[in-house]
This record gives sequence, structure tokens and C-alpha cells, in this order.
Amino acid sequence: MSSERKDIEEGLSFRPKFNEQGLIAVVTVDAGSNEVLMVANMNAAALEATLASGKGTYYSRRRGKLWVKGEQSGHGQKVVEILVDCDQDCLVMKVEAEGGQCHVGYGGCFYRRVKKGSPDQLELVGRRVFEPKEVYGESKDD
Amino acid sequence: MSSERKDIEEGLSFRPKFNEQGLIAVVTVDAGSNEVLMVANMNAAALEATLASGKGTYYSRRRGKLWVKGEQSGHGQKVVEILVDCDQDCLVMKVEAEGGQCHVGYGGCFYRRVKKGSPDQLELVGRRVFEPKEVYGESKDD
Repeated sequence: MSSERKDIEEGLSFRPKFNEQGLIAVVTVDAGSNEVLMVANMNAAALEATLASGKGTYYSRRRGKLWVKGEQSGHGQKVVEILVDCDQDCLVMKVEAEGGQCHVGYGGCFYRRVKKGSPDQLELVGRRVFEPKEVYGESKDD
Repeated sequence: MSSERKDIEEGLSFRPKFNEQGLIAVVTVDAGSNEVLMVANMNAAALEATLASGKGTYYSRRRGKLWVKGEQSGHGQKVVEILVDCDQDCLVMKVEAEGGQCHVGYGGCFYRRVKKGSPDQLELVGRRVFEPKEVYGESKDD
């Protein structure tokens, strides 16, 4: 194993590895339950803003700009801690979530599961906690 | 909102959206603790194999082939359930993990966290559960 790889995997320097689009994947989990709330991307500026502000801030590829979670909905994220994986190309961010985190109206984005025995079907496992139209109007965005 | 988007977000058909490389990101979590163990990719064949066998099976970009987690290390994954997110481009797979899941020797890949006040530094939060050389020899792979 190269010493470079050993440094990344076993060292204590934070050297986040952004992909060819300048992004790193972030798995955002509820700090209390560990439930996965959402998976999104940060670029270097979003990560810097998150670390500086303590508020979950992402990069929206569709909108081509930084996106402070909750800036539209009020359903933001207070960062508790950020973990990095072995090769430093993925983050787990533990947050205290302020309200439902998925724009469809659920606590998190993973509100359906693949049905056992019928893997082309899903079943609902989440609970709707807000009405998207009341929060976003017709835009349904953050 | 288009009815296509509504179907994907609110419907009960499983229509996983693979990216331009034919891959979908999978966040694998411990079914008991909800701890995130690893983040990897599946292609359609890996997802099909996972659903058919009940064993966590991924696509290795580096090796260019399917990869049954644990085939080398013995540290496999028994699938409990698979969740899909709102736009169906990401999965959360809950598993019963057989042994340490990270090739560096930890229970999961997220064994370090960004240090508060020194965000260029990490601190160790995981516990080493196996010695990689004893499991992988010099290859350190799955």
C-alpha cells in the first residue's frame, strides 16, 4: 500500500476528495435516531460554508449554486458532527433537523421500501409530516 | 409538477434511476443501530443479484465487475430491507453485517470525524475490530 493511500485512510488530516465535477457526496442523518434523512452533494464552498455556519449547506447541480437547506422551507439542519469515510470521498453529516427534510413532505427522503417478493413494487414506510404546497407553494424545492 | 415526477416521487413502482455510468449510490446501514457502514454503487446487475440472493452485492468501478461484499473477507451483509429516496436515484440498504465492514479494519467506513474548531483535522471515533493483513493478506480489498 502506498504511503499516500495510508495517509488518506489512516491519517488524521481532513483531505476531502471532490470528484471530477468538484463534488463530494454527503449522507445526512438524524443525530438522534441515525435515520438517513437525505443524500446530496457539497462542493468545496458548500463544505466551507457548512463548517463555518454550522448549517447544512449543499451544492445544487440543477440550480448551479449553493443551497442552505431550509432557506425556503424553514426546515434547516443544525450540524452536530461530520464523519468522513476511509478514502475521504464521502461524508456522513449528523444533524438536528428542523422539521421534515424531504420536499415531498416526509421526515426524510427514504419513505418507501422495496416490497419483499415483489421487487418492482414499493411500500410506504414514512409518515407525512407537512403539506408541500403549504411550505413551498408550487415550487417544491429545498 | 409533471405527472412523471409525481409518479417517481409518490408512486409505488420501483423505478431505480441509474446515472450516466449505469450506477446508483447505495448507503448501507446496520439494521440494528442505523449506523452508516459504507457507501458504494450498484449497477442493474448488482441490484438484481442483491434482491435475488439477499446478500449485499455491489459494482466495483476499479475492478470493473460485481462484488459480493465479504467474498474475500468473509465479512458479508445479509439484506434486511432496501429503501429508495424521493427521486429514486439513491438507495438505503439495511443489513445485518457479518464482521467489520471496512477494509481498514473498522466496523464501518466512517471511523473519523472532523475536529471541532480545527476543520482540517480528524479525530478517531471508530474502534478497530480486525487486522486487515490477517483478513486480506496484502490486497486489502473488499
